Amino acid sequence: MAGTYRYRIGQRDIDASLRARLYTMGDLILGAAGDDADMLGFGVSDLNTGNASWVLSRMAVELRRLPTRGEDMDIYTWVSDYGRLFTTRNMTLADEAGEQIGAAVTLWAMIDLDTRRPLDLSPLSNRATSLVDREPPIERPRKVGSFECTSEQRYAVVYSDIDFNGHVNSMKYLEWMVDTLPAEALASLDALRFDINYLHEATLGETLTICSGTDSACPVVTHHFDIRNAAGTSICRATVTPL
Amino acid sequence: MAGTYRYRIGQRDIDASLRARLYTMGDLILGAAGDDADMLGFGVSDLNTGNASWVLSRMAVELRRLPTRGEDMDIYTWVSDYGRLFTTRNMTLADEAGEQIGAAVTLWAMIDLDTRRPLDLSPLSNRATSLVDREPPIERPRKVGSFECTSEQRYAVVYSDIDFNGHVNSMKYLEWMVDTLPAEALASLDALRFDINYLHEATLGETLTICSGTDSACPVVTHHFDIRNAAGTSICRATVTPL
Repeated sequence: MAGTYRYRIGQRDIDASLRARLYTMGDLILGAAGDDADMLGFGVSDLNTGNASWVLSRMAVELRRLPTRGEDMDIYTWVSDYGRLFTTRNMTLADEAGEQIGAAVTLWAMIDLDTRRPLDLSPLSNRATSLVDREPPIERPRKVGSFECTSEQRYAVVYSDIDFNGHVNSMKYLEWMVDTLPAEALASLDALRFDINYLHEATLGETLTICSGTDSACPVVTHHFDIRNAAGTSICRATVTPL
Repeated sequence: MAGTYRYRIGQRDIDASLRARLYTMGDLILGAAGDDADMLGFGVSDLNTGNASWVLSRMAVELRRLPTRGEDMDIYTWVSDYGRLFTTRNMTLADEAGEQIGAAVTLWAMIDLDTRRPLDLSPLSNRATSLVDREPPIERPRKVGSFECTSEQRYAVVYSDIDFNGHVNSMKYLEWMVDTLPAEALASLDALRFDINYLHEATLGETLTICSGTDSACPVVTHHFDIRNAAGTSICRATVTPL
């Protein structure tokens, strides 16, 4: 089973270049994942009755262009596999002309809401019928390693960063990272790939450090990011690369 | 002429209480204003060809409840009057059952994008036909005065705060204000009124000070906010009151 979810890019979704923000694109991709999981009967509202929830482990997104205000975008999404701890959900993004403007691959774990520990996915009763035999549309999310941190910024987590799971919204990390880039780097990010790894949760009131570095030795300029908590533990790492 | 615009509250729009964020409600109200101005042929894209744009001067919003994920909300909006410098645009918000869950009154000025100075609204050729003879649904936006500032926080404006007008998104000020409130104050804000005054613009890289104070002498607890720029000038003031 697979589903298609339509979103219209609104005034609130665009930046000064009148194109959708990267943050919004990621949020809409994750929204389609949530809507489709609901349709399949294992969305967050279903899981919460069993005191469990989906959490994002890794995500890769490739965008050929950023849509503009008033454009409708269709996000087609399907689950391609289940492991014991992770499931892979894929997305393709099409504009009104049916042209593919982007794609995503996401890896999810299910956690117990009290212990915050991962749960075994094997007992998902409807797992066989919900799988679609179609490969991920782009390379799976890469593991993001360490790098030389050339800039550090502090950030204190506030109310508006917290999502329905009671922790920092997955896309907020990307927003903080992108916000550290200079304007000229942002302007060149019309077509791009990002890989993001979620290692630990962050909650209200925590002070985080956003480390960034740019690797000019790569064939294309690659932006590296690492967000650490007060204990110095990496909680989210990402790379952003122009395509 | 008037229009109705439908929005579905998505996963990205809710907080940990699973209700729409105040920020999102404001953003959707302003999105309806933008969409309707476009329909009438004097939206931002029309104005930009003449190097002008709409800017929000004052806004009052009353919400009876905050909608939850998956709910459709209809925003009905109309322009009730034009002055030489300001025009009044009104909104009512209805849920799927047709129940009114909120209302808003907004005052707008038109600025020249180079000088950032207000323009005379008199030459708007279609002004007569676009007016609707219907009073604002709630009390017009109040002038927010000075108050005793009991808490101050610094904030540096980043890329994701900037909207299509090239300045800070009007609702970002509200977000920063609400983010300073303690959790128990936020929990009591299911039904509320806010009045917000926009006095000056803020742009990328500026460092702002968010002053707040709570007036317990009022019949209901009233939260006061004042955002000042580096020169100490108030750029945005607001009050938030439970209803």
